[in-house]
Amino acid sequence: MASVDRRRVLRWRDGEVTAGPDALAIEEPLEIEVDGVTVSTTMRTPGHDIELALGWLVGEGALDSIGEVAEAKECFEHLEDDPEQVRRIVQVTTRSRTPIAPRLHATSSACGICGADMIAMTQQTRRWPLTQDTTTFDINAVLRQPDVLLAAQRGFAASGGLHAAGLFTADGELICAREDVGRHNAVDKVVGWALQEGRLPLTGHALQVSGRASAELVHKAVMAGVPLLAAVSAPSTLAVDLARESGLTLVGFVRGDSLNIYAGTERLGLSD
Amino acid sequence: MASVDRRRVLRWRDGEVTAGPDALAIEEPLEIEVDGVTVSTTMRTPGHDIELALGWLVGEGALDSIGEVAEAKECFEHLEDDPEQVRRIVQVTTRSRTPIAPRLHATSSACGICGADMIAMTQQTRRWPLTQDTTTFDINAVLRQPDVLLAAQRGFAASGGLHAAGLFTADGELICAREDVGRHNAVDKVVGWALQEGRLPLTGHALQVSGRASAELVHKAVMAGVPLLAAVSAPSTLAVDLARESGLTLVGFVRGDSLNIYAGTERLGLSD
Repeated sequence: MASVDRRRVLRWRDGEVTAGPDALAIEEPLEIEVDGVTVSTTMRTPGHDIELALGWLVGEGALDSIGEVAEAKECFEHLEDDPEQVRRIVQVTTRSRTPIAPRLHATSSACGICGADMIAMTQQTRRWPLTQDTTTFDINAVLRQPDVLLAAQRGFAASGGLHAAGLFTADGELICAREDVGRHNAVDKVVGWALQEGRLPLTGHALQVSGRASAELVHKAVMAGVPLLAAVSAPSTLAVDLARESGLTLVGFVRGDSLNIYAGTERLGLSD
Repeated sequence: MASVDRRRVLRWRDGEVTAGPDALAIEEPLEIEVDGVTVSTTMRTPGHDIELALGWLVGEGALDSIGEVAEAKECFEHLEDDPEQVRRIVQVTTRSRTPIAPRLHATSSACGICGADMIAMTQQTRRWPLTQDTTTFDINAVLRQPDVLLAAQRGFAASGGLHAAGLFTADGELICAREDVGRHNAVDKVVGWALQEGRLPLTGHALQVSGRASAELVHKAVMAGVPLLAAVSAPSTLAVDLARESGLTLVGFVRGDSLNIYAGTERLGLSD
């Protein structure tokens, strides 16, 4: 499936107007259904939709091996009056048929929710403790990850139009790259690929993302059992706090010959 | 409330390591409760939380005037073992007490959802048709919006650590600026402010956002009745399609002396 489509645009520059086509990232909704119940509707770039659904379910704590999946299939329907419009749903059937509780609605207090609650939720949901992963990563390999990931993206995506997530070995070899208008979707696609390949937990691997690191991305990394998350830009406070509590190595601002380490410095051979 | 906090970081540059504090954008969860029911938990930067909740409800089609709100209050609780951790909830009581249906779960087909469905949902939910808004905007005023918005952000935020949304008059005067780790939250805060000020629909106004324009942001603009949405970076395909169907003027890549117009060119005195 294409990740880019064209739309007509008027370009205004210093009073001069030119009209023409512009290549834009495709954004379309996808419904995820588990055991007959709609559990999520996500805005995503088409492609790798089953991976996206499976990876999202790993993040929700609903799956940790492909053996738990009885069936995962795409269902789609072209609109009669506009065949380019495709209604799409991924239907997952689990073996256990355990209902999925929306993670962020399970609040614990009559007075709302705080960062410590989020951290506790991740600790309660995760299936693999990262603290047992003693992999050491080479800083120079981590520094190369953004360029390797960028080279794996196609032309348009590499221009910044789409976010990317890439899974690397500790030696810096890229083994899976996915892209999407949403950074969290790109991560879900990578994790769903790993689930299908029987590679969870992702012990000894590094996950590289374009842009920033939110607490949600740290949560997804922890749920996939990946011990190192690197972002090209800044993490949030909660991303750092969650990484520390989870034993995840969190790296930010990976740019050229420098990077920042916010948590888990020992995996990069440094002490805090 | 502060929007920035410090965390310890190790900075690695070309083999040299220095340790120190780093200023990061605060990300914390907020629960939104309407008439006693939790309707959303959002990851946001603290501050203007009631505006955020009210603006989000405008986007969901649940509110269009402050007169529909009987009460909106914050409830919070400091954790005993960590007083810096604050559980927080915004509780909104409506006069009508009509239950809120999650917009993205109301799918119409056994075979999922497509972009045309999203566009139809916005048309069904919106309370003000933008096509009646014949305001003309000065392109030079629109070109200045990103700089004016940036100048209104505080030091750290202006460095790119936080997204921003700003509401402008057609003459280019900034009347409300809000920031957040999430661009959609910054927009909700601006719309919530406008609701509280009795300014909805935002006829004759322009909404400027940092970064890109997703379909969700276009939807929020349409729901607030604002006729022009400008982004510093690219829109997605669905953002363009939704803007066209809704009669919204959508501007992207507002940079220096140039911009791209994807929809509603007539409000900028141009014809497509």
